[in-house]
Amino acid sequence: MNPDTDEEPGLPPDGRSRVVIEGVAPAIDGGRYPVKRVVGDALRVEADIFCDGHDALTAVVQYRFHTDEAWREVPLEPLVNDRWRAEFTVDQIGNYEYRVLAWVDHFVSWHRDLRKRVAAGQAARVDLQIGAQLVERAASNAGGQDQHRLLNWVRRLRSDEVLGHLDQVCEDPELGQLMGRHASRDFATSSGATSSGPALRVHVDRERARCSAWYEMFPRSCSDTPGAHGTLRDVIARLPYVAEMGFDVLYLPPIHPIGITFRKGKNNQTIAQPDDVGSPWAIGGAEGGHKELHPQLGTWEDFDRLVSAAGELGIELALDIAFQCSPDHPYVAAQPGWFRQRPDGTVQYAENPPKKYQDIYPFDFETPQWSSLWRELKSVFDFWIARGVKIFRVDNPHTKPFGFWEWCLGEIHREHPDVLFLSEAFTRPKIMYRLAKLGFTQSYTYFAWRNTKTELTEYATELTTSEAREFFRPNFWPNTPDILTEHLQLGGRAAFMARVALAATLSANYGVYGPPYEHQWCVPREPGSEEYLHSEKYELHHHDLGRPDSLKEFLSRLNRIRREFAVLRTNETLRFHPVDNEQLICYSKATADGNQIILVIANLDPHHRQAGWVELPLEELHLEADHPFQVHDVLSDARYLWHGSRNYVELDPAIVPVHILHVKRRVRSERDFEYYL
Amino acid sequence: MNPDTDEEPGLPPDGRSRVVIEGVAPAIDGGRYPVKRVVGDALRVEADIFCDGHDALTAVVQYRFHTDEAWREVPLEPLVNDRWRAEFTVDQIGNYEYRVLAWVDHFVSWHRDLRKRVAAGQAARVDLQIGAQLVERAASNAGGQDQHRLLNWVRRLRSDEVLGHLDQVCEDPELGQLMGRHASRDFATSSGATSSGPALRVHVDRERARCSAWYEMFPRSCSDTPGAHGTLRDVIARLPYVAEMGFDVLYLPPIHPIGITFRKGKNNQTIAQPDDVGSPWAIGGAEGGHKELHPQLGTWEDFDRLVSAAGELGIELALDIAFQCSPDHPYVAAQPGWFRQRPDGTVQYAENPPKKYQDIYPFDFETPQWSSLWRELKSVFDFWIARGVKIFRVDNPHTKPFGFWEWCLGEIHREHPDVLFLSEAFTRPKIMYRLAKLGFTQSYTYFAWRNTKTELTEYATELTTSEAREFFRPNFWPNTPDILTEHLQLGGRAAFMARVALAATLSANYGVYGPPYEHQWCVPREPGSEEYLHSEKYELHHHDLGRPDSLKEFLSRLNRIRREFAVLRTNETLRFHPVDNEQLICYSKATADGNQIILVIANLDPHHRQAGWVELPLEELHLEADHPFQVHDVLSDARYLWHGSRNYVELDPAIVPVHILHVKRRVRSERDFEYYL
Repeated sequence: MNPDTDEEPGLPPDGRSRVVIEGVAPAIDGGRYPVKRVVGDALRVEADIFCDGHDALTAVVQYRFHTDEAWREVPLEPLVNDRWRAEFTVDQIGNYEYRVLAWVDHFVSWHRDLRKRVAAGQAARVDLQIGAQLVERAASNAGGQDQHRLLNWVRRLRSDEVLGHLDQVCEDPELGQLMGRHASRDFATSSGATSSGPALRVHVDRERARCSAWYEMFPRSCSDTPGAHGTLRDVIARLPYVAEMGFDVLYLPPIHPIGITFRKGKNNQTIAQPDDVGSPWAIGGAEGGHKELHPQLGTWEDFDRLVSAAGELGIELALDIAFQCSPDHPYVAAQPGWFRQRPDGTVQYAENPPKKYQDIYPFDFETPQWSSLWRELKSVFDFWIARGVKIFRVDNPHTKPFGFWEWCLGEIHREHPDVLFLSEAFTRPKIMYRLAKLGFTQSYTYFAWRNTKTELTEYATELTTSEAREFFRPNFWPNTPDILTEHLQLGGRAAFMARVALAATLSANYGVYGPPYEHQWCVPREPGSEEYLHSEKYELHHHDLGRPDSLKEFLSRLNRIRREFAVLRTNETLRFHPVDNEQLICYSKATADGNQIILVIANLDPHHRQAGWVELPLEELHLEADHPFQVHDVLSDARYLWHGSRNYVELDPAIVPVHILHVKRRVRSERDFEYYL
Repeated sequence: MNPDTDEEPGLPPDGRSRVVIEGVAPAIDGGRYPVKRVVGDALRVEADIFCDGHDALTAVVQYRFHTDEAWREVPLEPLVNDRWRAEFTVDQIGNYEYRVLAWVDHFVSWHRDLRKRVAAGQAARVDLQIGAQLVERAASNAGGQDQHRLLNWVRRLRSDEVLGHLDQVCEDPELGQLMGRHASRDFATSSGATSSGPALRVHVDRERARCSAWYEMFPRSCSDTPGAHGTLRDVIARLPYVAEMGFDVLYLPPIHPIGITFRKGKNNQTIAQPDDVGSPWAIGGAEGGHKELHPQLGTWEDFDRLVSAAGELGIELALDIAFQCSPDHPYVAAQPGWFRQRPDGTVQYAENPPKKYQDIYPFDFETPQWSSLWRELKSVFDFWIARGVKIFRVDNPHTKPFGFWEWCLGEIHREHPDVLFLSEAFTRPKIMYRLAKLGFTQSYTYFAWRNTKTELTEYATELTTSEAREFFRPNFWPNTPDILTEHLQLGGRAAFMARVALAATLSANYGVYGPPYEHQWCVPREPGSEEYLHSEKYELHHHDLGRPDSLKEFLSRLNRIRREFAVLRTNETLRFHPVDNEQLICYSKATADGNQIILVIANLDPHHRQAGWVELPLEELHLEADHPFQVHDVLSDARYLWHGSRNYVELDPAIVPVHILHVKRRVRSERDFEYYL
């Protein structure tokens, strides 16, 4: 038989590591990508942990902030079927690492077996000797008082008297506690997603990553004077309007110089008139590119004032970063290598054959000069971050390489972990998820086109219960400057109310493009189009904010309700409930203890009154079947007394098509209407 | 702006790799373990493949036998939602590697766009120039005739006449074929389970890994003379009996010397009588250990004759490898370091407190001498492999470290890829799956305790449709020397017939422990026990193989049917079908084209006649709703004419509790009973 000293190829470094760790969750793509949390969140970690034979195991989750050296740890508790679970709280913005550590715990095995032996009247001295050996080893790892106490235990276990007091050895908690701190962890297995993997990661954002209410508007349409080109000063003057509605992110389309060559006219006409203002997404002119302000919007001083004035009202500015150039962008001349050159010497413009977009030059990400291009694009974010912008809405990220985003967002998050990115990728599902994995904080979604109860239920359930919820934060928009859905075109005021109420309560992140939303703009450029007629993308508008039909008061209420009820500020507890009417949708968000329950019921039919019976899972919501409970519509302030699991609702789109009900548990009596909660 | 030459930490090696490959399947635990196939199988590979923007992609699966240098490849075809699929065949025993390679295919994009441009009447000369550049580059990669033809295309694309023949450029398949062979694969992404992972693996076994019929028997009970200790020569004499029943694996419990110290008596009594033969699993005596024959069984010459005689009858010998020692095993004295020493100087015996198994010494896998122990244990397999044994049933593998099995089975498979291992791990699900991932070819299962329709359906569905089917090959045993289930104890002959028919048709691998199975041994050691009274584990038996009540003919029929119908030799197509009677279970195995359909219907109630209506998915089975079809019971040779999707069945346990129906499609007329198939 061979000697044991030689290391043999194929043999593991130490064959005595007997514990297996599998299926660690959460772990996105085997740990390739971090999961996402916000400050103060708990991260629940689960893993399959087992070993050969019948020995007892001990397992911990170890975690640390990325700049820390030392690991903190929290014990894993066994569930069923070899699944274990632990939880820890992340309290700093930035990246954490976590991993699972598990080992065969000979002391716990010994103690467990000793109890069985004692119960069967066995427990010979030799078993106690074995225990004493284990404790003695732990004592040699310990110091101070603990060492002293462990050595006391060694003496006890080796003494004759102990045989008469075996119950004490079995029941005294001290020995177990001491051993828990100092017992050997020999041959422990450490694990990321798989036994051999690296540590897993969690990216911790600030709170606004998870809950935000966005308001998009065109600065150039902000002037109080009809026909005048709005300025950043006008935006400052508009801030109280936005703040009163309760939005906390003000998102501006690109504010850079706009190209003149091949400029698009009103309604996206190919030929612009001399006074046409052009699309803000045709970025770059003689005055500069992505790091310059459009001269008509104002000065850097105005911009800085806007950032601080917004901040004073609790509003953060979000800028639109669109990595594309007008033919007049300074990059085109200065960096011809960043664009694809055609054989005829011209620059390749954007195309979707047979359509041509000659006003836009895309970057050529296959250029040999890709690394200078990447660095320059990242520097655009850096530039605006230095000017105080911490939120970016990124235009069409799915038309730039995934590798670029992973690098760019990773570098920025390393330097500025509080910066948030909203991905404007209206594209295929796996691409949207990939961008989220790579570092985008939030993402646009298909919400705008999910109208039926089935569509809404399936989509929101996927987003909130599949693995996607660990990395993909949806941001629900009922409209954008590019998206005027058929439902809004045809549904009238009720559709506008219902859609924004759904967005604001289904998703903790939501947004609207206004004032067209408040004013219920619903006329498409042509039948079948989702473009607005006289879209603000191509022309100035003047908005009369005092219009009596404005939904601004309704939006204010929604945002007030979101601020009042914490359960609406996360998606974790979203659950759908049956209603016996296809046009009525019902869902709840509730704390696990039932102390806060919000129930939303919406009429999806903008034209007709709809009624039906809602079915609630009383037990899950901690509601008592035998007691009536009050539901308070925090939108309309109406109150209803409900009984049992089935209750009647009726919603008239001509009034308000939505109930947002605060469910108050346990009415003391129907007469005096006093609440315990 | 920075120069492009410097490599920057954080930047990828080449940012121009734009294609993403995700979710490659099959990939067990992210590719940590190989999937399993047998020679001649197709491996279907799927992956999510996409890139930024709108460029066309080309993707291939590359694969090679582990000793090959060069990769072979097969194109992936897009399905929906960015999922792609390809298939290749594995035709050698051993390990294959596979990976996915994908790249942006500028030629395919250009050709696609050209067709759109031509359709819209565009196609300017400059587009043709761009195409000519792509073709020219490909020509420089090509040689010989292909290069010549590609250069011809370059000339055509650059000529004036081509403008009049754009349709030809769009439609001529030659250019696409040439470019498919030679176009650039610049910036291709290669992938195992994740974008950055290593190649995935598939372990290819011989056919018997997937389909085998096992027969277990005790050699010492094989003597024709009542009371005499059977020998290997008696086993040779017994081979025709086994072969006539159609089994192809003959599995013998351990054939090594049996310990005397603490030997167990009949019915597992603690004190053995002088003439008690002991348990074959108490391995090792003065005569030797795991590499020695029990003297009473015969000589090495007998053993070699047994191996070859079995082979001549199409039967392979399977040995039982149990890594544990009797106190008399030579290892105990020669290698005290491989056992745990107690403080009183004795060797630690097996325990499950308060129970003690003093006749068994387990190995101490936490010994510092673990590597010499591992090597010695592996050498036990090597020893028997050298004597012609290629199948091992491994006793209690879950009480030895997982790391040991991964190393041991990996090494043996590297040297002897045709060796098969059956895992006897009756333990928790994740442990059983882990052992399969580590290299066990087949595994025992919970089948013995799955009796109701729901239990059988759920369990078989999990095994055949979950990811487990990629690595876990179930072997269904209705009984073993350790397992006499309550169902068999109480169910009589009908239970024995039904249970083995279920085992043999639900699972391509199955086995019985005989002759107690044929003879329907059903008496437990005591009520509530699953041990046999007078178990062969502790005493000799004499079996009268001519008993008129023997099920040997029934077993012969089952094995004959399995040989006749290939669909029964895999589990891939198993599907359950509704029957409106809880005691009747119905399932099919069928080829995808419907050319072979086997339908099994079993009465799970061993006491009463049961009848009901079976509901078949006609379309899936390629059966026509308007035509009657014949079902031929290949067990009883009865034939029935069935119509439509619902048909009546009736099974009397007093006769045969099972139909195994060969479904014959399309009866030409009811009268003349002629079949197309």
